[in-house]
Amino acid sequence: MQLPSEGRQRVVIETVTPQIDGGRFAIKRTVGEAVRVRAAVFADGHDSIACQVLYRPANTAEWISVAMVAKGNDCWEAAFPVSSLGRYFYTVVACIDPFITWRSDLTKRMAAQQNLAVELQIGAQWIELAAGRAKAEDAVRLRDWAAQLRAGDHNIALLDDLLATMQRYPDLSLATRYERKLSVTVDRERARFSTWYELFPRSTSPRPGQHGAFADCEKRLPYIASMAFDVVYLPPLHPIGRTHRKGKNNAPTAEPGDVGSPWAIGDDTGGHTAIHRELGTLEEFQSFVSAARAAGLEVALDIAFQCSPDHPWTREHPEWFRSRPDGTIQYAENPPKKYQDIYPLDFETPQWRELWTALKGVFDFWIEQGIRIFRVDNPHTKAFPFWEWCIGSLKEEHPDLIFLAEAFTRPHVMCHLAKLGFTQSYTYFAWRNTKAELTSYFTELTQTPVSEYLRPNLWPATPDILPAPLQIGGRPAFLVRLLLAATLGASYGIYGPAFELSENTPKEPGGEEFLNSEKYELKAWDLDSPGTIRHFIARVNRIRRDNPALQRDGGLRFHETDNPNLICYSKTTEDFSNVIIVVVNLDWAHTQAGWVTLDVAALGLEGGRPFEAEDLLSGSRFLWQVPRDYVELAPVSLPGHILRVRRWLRTERDFDYYL
Amino acid sequence: MQLPSEGRQRVVIETVTPQIDGGRFAIKRTVGEAVRVRAAVFADGHDSIACQVLYRPANTAEWISVAMVAKGNDCWEAAFPVSSLGRYFYTVVACIDPFITWRSDLTKRMAAQQNLAVELQIGAQWIELAAGRAKAEDAVRLRDWAAQLRAGDHNIALLDDLLATMQRYPDLSLATRYERKLSVTVDRERARFSTWYELFPRSTSPRPGQHGAFADCEKRLPYIASMAFDVVYLPPLHPIGRTHRKGKNNAPTAEPGDVGSPWAIGDDTGGHTAIHRELGTLEEFQSFVSAARAAGLEVALDIAFQCSPDHPWTREHPEWFRSRPDGTIQYAENPPKKYQDIYPLDFETPQWRELWTALKGVFDFWIEQGIRIFRVDNPHTKAFPFWEWCIGSLKEEHPDLIFLAEAFTRPHVMCHLAKLGFTQSYTYFAWRNTKAELTSYFTELTQTPVSEYLRPNLWPATPDILPAPLQIGGRPAFLVRLLLAATLGASYGIYGPAFELSENTPKEPGGEEFLNSEKYELKAWDLDSPGTIRHFIARVNRIRRDNPALQRDGGLRFHETDNPNLICYSKTTEDFSNVIIVVVNLDWAHTQAGWVTLDVAALGLEGGRPFEAEDLLSGSRFLWQVPRDYVELAPVSLPGHILRVRRWLRTERDFDYYL
Repeated sequence: MQLPSEGRQRVVIETVTPQIDGGRFAIKRTVGEAVRVRAAVFADGHDSIACQVLYRPANTAEWISVAMVAKGNDCWEAAFPVSSLGRYFYTVVACIDPFITWRSDLTKRMAAQQNLAVELQIGAQWIELAAGRAKAEDAVRLRDWAAQLRAGDHNIALLDDLLATMQRYPDLSLATRYERKLSVTVDRERARFSTWYELFPRSTSPRPGQHGAFADCEKRLPYIASMAFDVVYLPPLHPIGRTHRKGKNNAPTAEPGDVGSPWAIGDDTGGHTAIHRELGTLEEFQSFVSAARAAGLEVALDIAFQCSPDHPWTREHPEWFRSRPDGTIQYAENPPKKYQDIYPLDFETPQWRELWTALKGVFDFWIEQGIRIFRVDNPHTKAFPFWEWCIGSLKEEHPDLIFLAEAFTRPHVMCHLAKLGFTQSYTYFAWRNTKAELTSYFTELTQTPVSEYLRPNLWPATPDILPAPLQIGGRPAFLVRLLLAATLGASYGIYGPAFELSENTPKEPGGEEFLNSEKYELKAWDLDSPGTIRHFIARVNRIRRDNPALQRDGGLRFHETDNPNLICYSKTTEDFSNVIIVVVNLDWAHTQAGWVTLDVAALGLEGGRPFEAEDLLSGSRFLWQVPRDYVELAPVSLPGHILRVRRWLRTERDFDYYL
Repeated sequence: MQLPSEGRQRVVIETVTPQIDGGRFAIKRTVGEAVRVRAAVFADGHDSIACQVLYRPANTAEWISVAMVAKGNDCWEAAFPVSSLGRYFYTVVACIDPFITWRSDLTKRMAAQQNLAVELQIGAQWIELAAGRAKAEDAVRLRDWAAQLRAGDHNIALLDDLLATMQRYPDLSLATRYERKLSVTVDRERARFSTWYELFPRSTSPRPGQHGAFADCEKRLPYIASMAFDVVYLPPLHPIGRTHRKGKNNAPTAEPGDVGSPWAIGDDTGGHTAIHRELGTLEEFQSFVSAARAAGLEVALDIAFQCSPDHPWTREHPEWFRSRPDGTIQYAENPPKKYQDIYPLDFETPQWRELWTALKGVFDFWIEQGIRIFRVDNPHTKAFPFWEWCIGSLKEEHPDLIFLAEAFTRPHVMCHLAKLGFTQSYTYFAWRNTKAELTSYFTELTQTPVSEYLRPNLWPATPDILPAPLQIGGRPAFLVRLLLAATLGASYGIYGPAFELSENTPKEPGGEEFLNSEKYELKAWDLDSPGTIRHFIARVNRIRRDNPALQRDGGLRFHETDNPNLICYSKTTEDFSNVIIVVVNLDWAHTQAGWVTLDVAALGLEGGRPFEAEDLLSGSRFLWQVPRDYVELAPVSLPGHILRVRRWLRTERDFDYYL
């Protein structure tokens, strides 16, 4: 083995967190948040160490340093703020600090009344060396202190001002720098906190059986805004293929008049950058987007990279598809099932560069129209390297973009898409119903390294997924699932108006598909149905807007209950200025009661004083005992509590007149 | 962002284990063991994947591949053997396997009785492509199969022989190779399984008060060998400094005749490569080493890189030490304590290259004398980069070397030394006494990634450490602690003859130092004292030799007991051919009894049948109930059981005549 070029770098920096896969991927934050960096830092022997986090926005060259603080057991910690959109870098640097070592030893020598003569000379040497690295005015002061030490004035050694000045000029010549430059992607706030409403634009006509248009969608906006959503997500609004078009209820053959699935994209009038003729023009779309914005709603589009057999690309770029020995293009399959109305793109095509560029061009087109949020359909069936490049390239130019990955697939694949750059991710929430399932899944999502890169977006139902509990439980189950989604996740969404109208008829027993699914036909919804839960949704969404604790996933903690039908969890801001406790009756059919034992530390409480809580759903106020209190929830009146901790009950000692 | 040079590498390889700090350090194995590699491997979509571990000895260029097996949830696994000393590399490579995908889809299409005409053409294409990569005779067979498929013979598709041939020629042109080349250091068996006996050579003279010599040590060998140890470790055997020499019981001033501490190395006759005049000559040392080898014992030397003020280096190389402003050399300190008999080396010296070379030269010298095991004194007070270079360089030439790190310091530092290359490590065993402490510590050492690089060597006592339980408990406590060390650790050691004679008088109450410590004076031990536990030690060590389960740390599992004074654990070989269950009474003063509940799966058992067990300590045999049975241990007769599971109790169904 050869000698290293420098053998005197004595400090080791290890296990720097947060980091993903050895720094291969960026962690995620939103503007105004902080990155708390932790590392194990140590050296041989007993010398003191100085340790700093270095960080900078990717578009600047100068590193900013923050001193790390020793937390015991060789663990060090510091936080840095991310205040602008885009990417930041961070790393750790550390060195032996001989002055601190000397200063701390000197204190012990003084206590033991040892002769300090030689020690003071040694200290003066360290200070004189620092003076050589210092700015002019500091150098003068340092040399002055050194001279006083040399003259025997040991009181100089412990001056706070000397210490502070010395710490500004560490000797980094033998410092260790962590070998990786880690990165963080900084998104806008909506990446962390968003409330989605999915709407089929073609089902918005006031006249049943008539194809809806953007003008109809505009009229629907006040209704959606009244429920305090902030994102309106539209399924694909492109022309729909005619070849092998599916009929109602996914019938293999369409009847005349059947409108087909919006995900069978493209016909002879255009593909992914065209608009379905009956929805309206590009100008009408833009008018809708503006009207939405005025109503406090941002429009999200669906990007589904697949083509109907009539899509222009099938003629212009057959090389982007897989061809079969009989000269036909390979349609989508999951043998023995065939989806002949859909051609998948071939990411192994030798012309992958042109394909990638065209796909990115689809995003570019809609970005040009002012769209900044995209819900990406089945990203897990497109090549991973494409997403890393496409999202990376787009966010370089538009760091305010948000991409939601609609992948319901295996955990490694879902996590990988999030690492590659997707801003938010669909989850398994639709299939997590029991207290044990919810506790374990949301602990994993929010308390493990997954939380550094995967932001969950919870959907109690989608046009493709009508979970069994909603089929069985009806309206009360819809209330429970909405309450869970809206309080477990900082981001969640509903597929409307089906959800607020508790639409729950399955196509077949045991299945998860809707009967007469909106995916294959126009629907007319009775928005004023007496059973609507829109007012409940509006209340829950307003509670989310008013309470910062519900706008982040990080502060989630579960609390013990003695009844498996009762789940209790809390969400807090980092500084505990907003503390929310949620208790939900998971049994929508019966009243359930039990004792809740609060994890007092997770609520930022000291002592065991009762507190005053306001149920933000019912408006009533309680006095809560700590840590245990009794809860009873009757599903007919209320599926749960969203309690805001108002203040600790005061005693006579808290008032002036006690003294 | 630029387009990647290849955008079609669709497979992702993640979380490859074992690996340490992103491949920065090597894992450890011994010759004949296996490395079980696990990885998460997945691609977009639903295509099948082929996945291989590649490995090779560092001194060969050709990679050997082992197919990985899918274990579910995108996790893959394969093991490769390490059969020679030195370093191996390993990594993972994976690709989409279109043939397997096609074959598996075809099976489903056949079951659904679909028309296969086009599919058979597609399969033939894949086979023809593989033929282009195949060796001549395989190419012929593949083309033949392809032709039969093209002719419509679908039975060809599922031939095992076709599958096996295709798997020999994967298309790696778009394969993903894991970005890191991981490494494993392969040591000889003694690195994993060793039984140490520490002996002060100067205390071996049959005449009390006389300085022992190598000739006396030789006469001690049969005694040590009779206890079935395999390593004899000698504290430093170099000349001892006279300046500031310590007296008996670490007195600041030596009296005439005081022999000083062997760790105050060097006088005017020599330093780290010289031998203390009264011990003998280099030839006599070599004779001792040979005699030890003949007795089945390997000699380990102590390397302590520090100097007495009389060491030749202090004159020849004052630049290797830190100098003080008054012109003196800085002695060792832990303010306010001063150790003026010791000069530490300065690893920040500008002449670090020369210093490193000289220190490595010390090892080289003793390696030249046939020594292959070194116990390194306080490695944590020498610069880390030095150890990585020194051990790395030495093991390149002598892969059979074993280095034991004597560092009792903070966990990160101890782990780091092991990562840097130390073969074995001292542990906190001396301070782990209760069931909870032992369970948690040994679970950490054997069931976490630490086990990949840190091999524990357990010492119930050392010349510096006389733990309180031995002071309080006396002989019965010595039995308990020996039994724990010898069965919890594949490597352990005792400081003899103090240990087998249960020497336990502390210098002062509450301290951990021996009164009249052998470190500062000659000792005469009465080896035939009636209280000796040498016969117990011999029996335990022979049990270790006979049972491979006790020769590795990996198979350790703890089992539940309902009495905190009873600890139960098992050790097994990987194939469960040797299963050992140990139960120890941690209370040396009282009989303790309780119920043990065995974790049956950890013992490789199926079903709940009782088994026949032999207590290897007492020789008695029991019938053990599964999973719970009762244990009672009286310290006067026996501190514990070492049970070998002999065989499961058979029933009538196990005999021929039953059928």
